[in-house]
Amino acid sequence: MSFFRSRWVQPPEGIEERDPAALAPGFRAAGVRTGVKPSGEPDVGLVTCDDPEVRSAALFTANAAPAPPVRICRERCDLGSLRAIVANSGNANAATGPHGIEDAADMQERAADALGLSPTLVGVASTGVIGRRLPMAAILAGIEEAATELGGDRGEDFAHSIMTTDSGPKRCAVRLDGVTLTAQAKGAGMMQPGFATLLCFVQTDAEVPDPSVRLRGAAESSFGRITVDGQMSTNDSIFLQATGASGRPLPEGLLEAVLLQLALDVVADGEGATRVARVEAVEAASEEEAERVARAIANSQLVQTGIFGHDANWGRIVQAAGMALVGEEVELGPENVDAAELGEDVAELELGIRLGRGSWGAHVWCSDLTYDYVKLNAEYTT
Amino acid sequence: MSFFRSRWVQPPEGIEERDPAALAPGFRAAGVRTGVKPSGEPDVGLVTCDDPEVRSAALFTANAAPAPPVRICRERCDLGSLRAIVANSGNANAATGPHGIEDAADMQERAADALGLSPTLVGVASTGVIGRRLPMAAILAGIEEAATELGGDRGEDFAHSIMTTDSGPKRCAVRLDGVTLTAQAKGAGMMQPGFATLLCFVQTDAEVPDPSVRLRGAAESSFGRITVDGQMSTNDSIFLQATGASGRPLPEGLLEAVLLQLALDVVADGEGATRVARVEAVEAASEEEAERVARAIANSQLVQTGIFGHDANWGRIVQAAGMALVGEEVELGPENVDAAELGEDVAELELGIRLGRGSWGAHVWCSDLTYDYVKLNAEYTT
Repeated sequence: MSFFRSRWVQPPEGIEERDPAALAPGFRAAGVRTGVKPSGEPDVGLVTCDDPEVRSAALFTANAAPAPPVRICRERCDLGSLRAIVANSGNANAATGPHGIEDAADMQERAADALGLSPTLVGVASTGVIGRRLPMAAILAGIEEAATELGGDRGEDFAHSIMTTDSGPKRCAVRLDGVTLTAQAKGAGMMQPGFATLLCFVQTDAEVPDPSVRLRGAAESSFGRITVDGQMSTNDSIFLQATGASGRPLPEGLLEAVLLQLALDVVADGEGATRVARVEAVEAASEEEAERVARAIANSQLVQTGIFGHDANWGRIVQAAGMALVGEEVELGPENVDAAELGEDVAELELGIRLGRGSWGAHVWCSDLTYDYVKLNAEYTT
Repeated sequence: MSFFRSRWVQPPEGIEERDPAALAPGFRAAGVRTGVKPSGEPDVGLVTCDDPEVRSAALFTANAAPAPPVRICRERCDLGSLRAIVANSGNANAATGPHGIEDAADMQERAADALGLSPTLVGVASTGVIGRRLPMAAILAGIEEAATELGGDRGEDFAHSIMTTDSGPKRCAVRLDGVTLTAQAKGAGMMQPGFATLLCFVQTDAEVPDPSVRLRGAAESSFGRITVDGQMSTNDSIFLQATGASGRPLPEGLLEAVLLQLALDVVADGEGATRVARVEAVEAASEEEAERVARAIANSQLVQTGIFGHDANWGRIVQAAGMALVGEEVELGPENVDAAELGEDVAELELGIRLGRGSWGAHVWCSDLTYDYVKLNAEYTT
């Protein structure tokens, strides 16, 4: 099956899909098992670039209580020149106080030592349970082991090492116009945009003179527009590394298509999710209003359970829109709502509302709220 | 069992509970079956006051798309002198456009005719499914029937006639200092404060010279602080009617205690709910900030499923608080969170967070998110 499988993604013409285990030229990765995850699955990963001229960009959660790895990245990294990122899953190293900061810094330093780099060139990312200290002996040993196992064909191992409640690895390798781009992501719950809520790593040999601008734009229209449960994580991080070694520019629309498909993979893999909906609000009085309404509908537990139940109950869409517009007065009837696909047996559906207040529009994607979301989050500590 | 059964309600000393079927002196009510509810349960109700000097007050949803009955109340009622209110359940008459306005006006007029009152003295309230027109022939016949069955001992019938997904009627009759106060409420889902989301009717023979002020104050600290699913209804309405016939003032704390217990009954009866939590945020930089944080925690699907699962996962409380404080930077660790009761086997529990940013505090109450919430809202059109 093609990586680009959503109805909402139009990859550029001529794109070629590659083995996702292979990283873009100049990059190596690894993923190892340290026992942080009780399941014994891989839980510590490294991705590194051999090219000292690599350019990079990173985006982080807007949560006011960011996890120590996010703070280390912001405060002690040269985010425009990152050579490597060390990551772990199974424990988010979040809400861990000063000890957590030390632990994240120790991860950064150990990875830098093992790779022969300055610590400022090494990013740190963690994901998993909040509020517990990392088992540092295991983590540090895992980093050293990973550094000995790095390979250009280890993208799959790395993708596995960042998974939490994901049902499978999220990754791709594509080639277009002489440029290779590879990416690995994870995410399933605690998922609502600031820009996004997840970990994502992108490698390319394209020339990207303005990586921050390109990354921010592509993330805004992809990870920035998804929600599973309206919850913004403490650990969201996206990294883009570009060597420029191909001597070719990043083709128009390539990064955008890859990030959008990955974002939709995250929503579709939302905890317990069975369906994904694109929710669009149009004829709003401002862009902010359109987005506020679209998000209120997408995050409504009543709308989300209706999507799960194939219940063509468009009244809940009107109710959620009215809630988002408190202080205004609007007339909303059946003619304002497009909910035809709610009752249809499709995995990807579209919902719309016309507000009749102006000419602005916005859309977001959400998953449904199911028994399995409750089960996953009531029965397990995640 | 006493009506006042929550750990969070302190009724005034000396309060006496009466048969909840009996209305306050001077009031009569009825509830009849018209078939609007497929279950055949009562679905049209009337409550009326025999005293032309009655004073009244009403509060309505802040939803920007209020239902026609709310609009009729606002636009065509003398809300300070309401003699009667006509109500129906099973159909909210919401998102029904100009036809819905006509239908709500017809309900008002038919009730006024049957009671020999001016339509401006009759309020209208509806609750139930959104987006369908009322079966007006049945409704109007039901109003006429109800008008012939009015009695001072029919509070129980009226309370039944306003139920939707409620597990039982919510009502009380209390007496204190020579004053009688009776109340009936409904509510279970689509429940998040503007002030509240439900229907509530209060009758008393106390002297209440400032019914709007008293009602607003009592509602703000009760229905204004509860959430089941973060969804603001299109139909929320609270009515207070006071005759003053007792010649005594409304005792301090009486209305407040009754509305708080009714509000907590609504949360405890939240769709699928098994537990109620009081969520308090303290040491906030402003009252608005405290309330924003408390609501973000209370409405978090992750926190709500954790309450259901008795999962002492305090990290989700930190995450939700951090999300509510986007744009700030805060340090939140285990010492900031009081989540001890999460894992305990209590039906009413308290959660707290200290933000360390100032001296403001706020609290809200929420229910948990359970399999049965998903079942109720995915399998049935409500």
